Amino acid sequence: MSWHASVLTIYPAMFPGPLGHALAGRALERGDWRLDVSDIRSFALDRHRSVDDTPAGGGPGMVMRPDVLAAAIDAAAAAGPDRPRLLMSPRGRPLTQERVRELAAGEGAVLLCGRFEGVDERLIEARGLEEVSIGDYVLSGGEIAAMTVLDAAVRLLPGVMGAADSHVEESFEDGLLEYPQYTRPQVWEGREIPAVLVSGDHGRVAEWRRAERERATRERRPDLWAGRRLSSPSRLDKCDGLK
Amino acid sequence: MSWHASVLTIYPAMFPGPLGHALAGRALERGDWRLDVSDIRSFALDRHRSVDDTPAGGGPGMVMRPDVLAAAIDAAAAAGPDRPRLLMSPRGRPLTQERVRELAAGEGAVLLCGRFEGVDERLIEARGLEEVSIGDYVLSGGEIAAMTVLDAAVRLLPGVMGAADSHVEESFEDGLLEYPQYTRPQVWEGREIPAVLVSGDHGRVAEWRRAERERATRERRPDLWAGRRLSSPSRLDKCDGLK
Repeated sequence: MSWHASVLTIYPAMFPGPLGHALAGRALERGDWRLDVSDIRSFALDRHRSVDDTPAGGGPGMVMRPDVLAAAIDAAAAAGPDRPRLLMSPRGRPLTQERVRELAAGEGAVLLCGRFEGVDERLIEARGLEEVSIGDYVLSGGEIAAMTVLDAAVRLLPGVMGAADSHVEESFEDGLLEYPQYTRPQVWEGREIPAVLVSGDHGRVAEWRRAERERATRERRPDLWAGRRLSSPSRLDKCDGLK
Repeated sequence: MSWHASVLTIYPAMFPGPLGHALAGRALERGDWRLDVSDIRSFALDRHRSVDDTPAGGGPGMVMRPDVLAAAIDAAAAAGPDRPRLLMSPRGRPLTQERVRELAAGEGAVLLCGRFEGVDERLIEARGLEEVSIGDYVLSGGEIAAMTVLDAAVRLLPGVMGAADSHVEESFEDGLLEYPQYTRPQVWEGREIPAVLVSGDHGRVAEWRRAERERATRERRPDLWAGRRLSSPSRLDKCDGLK
């Protein structure tokens, strides 16, 4: 059984979209993963195919109905009930590479794409939805967020990345950002590749790259840098500031 | 002149993709924004249309060449040179709703979608690229990240959201997550809508929602909550813990 994604949306024509191209698209064609897309409207209970209604307590916008969404989720979950059920939402827990790795190691995921002002809170409780946020900004709906989760997870599935796409030394894998990259031409617009990288000295290259990763993380992401020091006992021992 | 996005990618067929549907798609049809997509390969300098080469200093994967990318950027930037030039990259500054609002208030953006192991660092310096990360995870390329930025920005453009899509009280607009939402039916699977929301007392509803926003932010996002307290003098005054 290949990794199985079930997406619930009122815009099924958005899928596979970008996931039908490049790395994820080739993996989909090969059957390394499976993508089912359900139109939430087909689970509506009235002849107008309504999926939303006005918010209890008033306020702008519309809220997705719990009964319609529950029917859509239950139908999708039947094809793989042990998969986590994700609700894409700015109220969710921020997605991390660690969570992506866990998702990729599982059987797949059910992804519910919210629209309008959100979904009825009772649905989240009753169906045990995991609210996931891809970042601290607001999208017009959960579809592009679901694509983000799927793209990140699919590339980690066995066989999807070849040697040319290796992910040994990439951002977040050990709490550090990547080192800067250079390629041909050797001199471009008067700018040269750093000498150490063309020295042929593998030890010095590795040392330079490690230092650049640490520098980039410290300068650009003090939040990641601080979290890394606190979670690494070997570094804590060396840290006078915390003694 | 409408808001103008220029996307540079080696997968132009991915666009507009999801941005051609729903809110962003209708806005694109109406001309509320414009989307140009350039194929980076058409700026390649050899007959193999190469856009990448091996990393200086060795290592896995391939790096996008500065000369080819510069030609693509310069051509795209010519149609609106004052627009920020964004490089979608996990090494970038995390995207925030504040930055999205700034982008939406401007003339548009040039968005460069990285692939492979990244782009030559000299290009980033020479063309003043703003490295933007949509979150702490790794994608197979920058295309879905660019769609994320565009979806978030386009919905804020004048005229794109109707009254039904109001964004007055949404996550991050004032450093708090949204309040939970409820809609019909009044009782669903034995679960009731909280009584205050059907009380008709607008003052109590507003008070409950505010308290729920604060509770959700404190419980789910202590990082946002802490940042908010520190940036709000009126709250600091009331905070014994910091005196």
